[in-house]
Amino acid sequence: MRQLPPERDDNEPWLPEVFEDSYGLSADLIFAVTDALEAGDGVQAHALVIDLHEADLADLVESLGRDDRTKLVKLLGADFDPEVLPFLDSAVLEDLLEEIAPLDLARSIAELDSDDAFDVIEDLDEAAQRRVLDSLTPSDRLVLEESLTYPEDSAGRLMQREVVVVPESWTVGETIDYLRAGENLPDDFYDLFVVDPRHHPVGYVPLSRAMRTRRPVPLREIMEADMKTIPLAMDQEEVAYVFRQYGLVSAPVVEDGGRLVGVITVDDVVHIIDEEAEEDLMKLGGVSETDLYSDVLDTTKSRASWLVVNLGTAIVASLVISMFEGTIQQLVALAVLMPIVASMGGNAGTQTLTVAVRAIAMKDLSAANAKRFVGKELLVACVNGLLFAVLTGAVAWLWFDAPAIGAVIAAAMVINMVIAGLSGTLIPMGLDKVGVDPAVASSVFVTTVTDVVGFFAFLGLAAVFLL
Amino acid sequence: MRQLPPERDDNEPWLPEVFEDSYGLSADLIFAVTDALEAGDGVQAHALVIDLHEADLADLVESLGRDDRTKLVKLLGADFDPEVLPFLDSAVLEDLLEEIAPLDLARSIAELDSDDAFDVIEDLDEAAQRRVLDSLTPSDRLVLEESLTYPEDSAGRLMQREVVVVPESWTVGETIDYLRAGENLPDDFYDLFVVDPRHHPVGYVPLSRAMRTRRPVPLREIMEADMKTIPLAMDQEEVAYVFRQYGLVSAPVVEDGGRLVGVITVDDVVHIIDEEAEEDLMKLGGVSETDLYSDVLDTTKSRASWLVVNLGTAIVASLVISMFEGTIQQLVALAVLMPIVASMGGNAGTQTLTVAVRAIAMKDLSAANAKRFVGKELLVACVNGLLFAVLTGAVAWLWFDAPAIGAVIAAAMVINMVIAGLSGTLIPMGLDKVGVDPAVASSVFVTTVTDVVGFFAFLGLAAVFLL
Repeated sequence: MRQLPPERDDNEPWLPEVFEDSYGLSADLIFAVTDALEAGDGVQAHALVIDLHEADLADLVESLGRDDRTKLVKLLGADFDPEVLPFLDSAVLEDLLEEIAPLDLARSIAELDSDDAFDVIEDLDEAAQRRVLDSLTPSDRLVLEESLTYPEDSAGRLMQREVVVVPESWTVGETIDYLRAGENLPDDFYDLFVVDPRHHPVGYVPLSRAMRTRRPVPLREIMEADMKTIPLAMDQEEVAYVFRQYGLVSAPVVEDGGRLVGVITVDDVVHIIDEEAEEDLMKLGGVSETDLYSDVLDTTKSRASWLVVNLGTAIVASLVISMFEGTIQQLVALAVLMPIVASMGGNAGTQTLTVAVRAIAMKDLSAANAKRFVGKELLVACVNGLLFAVLTGAVAWLWFDAPAIGAVIAAAMVINMVIAGLSGTLIPMGLDKVGVDPAVASSVFVTTVTDVVGFFAFLGLAAVFLL
Repeated sequence: MRQLPPERDDNEPWLPEVFEDSYGLSADLIFAVTDALEAGDGVQAHALVIDLHEADLADLVESLGRDDRTKLVKLLGADFDPEVLPFLDSAVLEDLLEEIAPLDLARSIAELDSDDAFDVIEDLDEAAQRRVLDSLTPSDRLVLEESLTYPEDSAGRLMQREVVVVPESWTVGETIDYLRAGENLPDDFYDLFVVDPRHHPVGYVPLSRAMRTRRPVPLREIMEADMKTIPLAMDQEEVAYVFRQYGLVSAPVVEDGGRLVGVITVDDVVHIIDEEAEEDLMKLGGVSETDLYSDVLDTTKSRASWLVVNLGTAIVASLVISMFEGTIQQLVALAVLMPIVASMGGNAGTQTLTVAVRAIAMKDLSAANAKRFVGKELLVACVNGLLFAVLTGAVAWLWFDAPAIGAVIAAAMVINMVIAGLSGTLIPMGLDKVGVDPAVASSVFVTTVTDVVGFFAFLGLAAVFLL
């Protein structure tokens, strides 16, 4: 029999005080679990994780190495809470599914609400999806397969089918009786959706209002008729916008004819807001998506595709420089200074495009204020262009003891920073207009422009005025 | 008397169909309002905006030019919904406050919930804040002044004081009776907080659960005791983390001794999540905060401070190049090719640091998995380094018909991309460890490293092996 260290008692496993009442997962806990797993101390590992919130357990599973991850899930066995699954990153989930017996998985998925179950299978590759679907009961499978027919990232995939609807003729009392008798209600809900006989939503009653109202009052009298409904096909980014804009906690999803078919709740939307913000951040950073949990090969491939584009644009900039090889040979100071012009332009352009990309994503920049935005950015670019022209010009003059070099770099700086301001606004707005995501492509276009213009203006002016 | 165009009737102003049932604000509506305001057609402008949701009206006000903005608010007069104010960007708000009479403003603020009222005054500069506070009744002023004593960006500033608390001895029926009689309840609430006699929260009951339970059942039996409480001083970023991590819709705020003093609801947190994601995006883009609505001077100043830092680092890179002036003079091809090495390193480093910064912000990267993360990024850097070494080497060889140049640039590329991978992980993690926000400073450090290493490796190897 396995020996426990003498100071510990099997029934009361040691729990470091620091883990209590903390929010989220501490690195210490991850270390402690890793140590326990690697020492083969299943009792300790079990004790450390069993009281964790499912979201924290998901984070823990993600933080562990591959082997420890499998060990932990096997160790937990029937104690492994299926609610953990929707919180897992899809790369980790696919890994894990290979270790869980199909029957266990089917049982786990059947326990989840329809939107959570769908969350689990949505991100899997097709083979893994098929394997999971095949292990479900026909009725569960049907629901999930229907969800899969909705377009990716649409409201249909986000919604939950369990929804509380009440006829408009009811009173508060009738509603309360219905809820008290109710079966097949969702775990949590925040609004009562009032429907007409065709099952079209006509208004909603926030739960807090229903609870404050006396039984005989008809719902019609307290319901809010000014309601935002979400079409099945609406993109999740738009869904997030509607929730944020109107401060919603839940909203009914309607199919084409207007029938209510589901509900989206704010907890799902919080994740979408996070995802969308993360997507923009990653795209601007030249990463297709967060690849923290992807394996080396996937990460390398996705990063390389972006670097190939960058290699192309760098070569274009080099071609510009090569037009002035003779000039550089005569005045090597130009080679020393030219990266400054390109780099300042690139940074100024990135500042502008970051503001533009975010404003477009948040619907704060549209045709209506485009002219004002471009005008302002142009003015900012002119002022900063002049400021940094003087600064850089002075540095170059002092460094090479040549006022003419200072004048040339100053002129090139103004030109490049104005172009940076213009391209930092016009390129994202133009991409958005032709339907290309400005977060993906703006950065590469803008820095190409500022590199090319920077090198060309500086070396060109030098060739004309210095030689 | 002002003449209306014949086809329009004063009582039934023309409303373009396209505006109906849309989500958010259309550019067409903004244009229509601008046209009406500039034509002095107050009736039309009024009709166009009067039915807008307060969030949309706020967006409209932000989208208008300065003069039109004031015109519109004056035109609306008493019809101007105070609920619009919390939605406004602080730069726009300050502008507007100068136009609204103090008494009107005091009336407006008094109508808001305490957290919304605080939202309005929090972002103002001190003079404007004073002016608003002075125009309030003493009791309203006291509440807001107390909120201002909490640290910036803390839970205390985010919370709402109107909160529904019930003693643990109550039944569902007693609770319902209390709510029905209730005055001074918040407009919307989602959970009932159960408190002990010392007013410490001991659990919560989701409204949906309370509504489904029969009157005689004690709250103690249906309450959820596993509850996250938010300390008054908790940073809003941490609050957002707790809400997102545990899928909360509301959470009680407690002061030091554990007494419940307020509640934070998910709608406030959605804005924080947005703000925090936006902050990271802006900082990585070299912008201190979204300056869409700031005036030219403020924008120029805040952008310039970042560009000064960049100028410094660009000069450092130039100093490295100047060490090799002689080498470049002998072989100008080096000047042509050197930006490629620096640029590829900069991009690879940015990819890695973007993933690292986001993972740190989301608490997905900690001491527990740091080693694994660095190891993986190093491997990715090696593979991509080799790949792009071969590609770039071949291009340089063919371009300048010199295999030796190809070999040198290939070697420099591997070195710089590996350094990029290392600095892209270690710099943000190091900054986080010493308490500096990695989103602010990582970018400039990493690109400085990749510029310096890129130029030094390429030109240095060339000096040794090519001349």
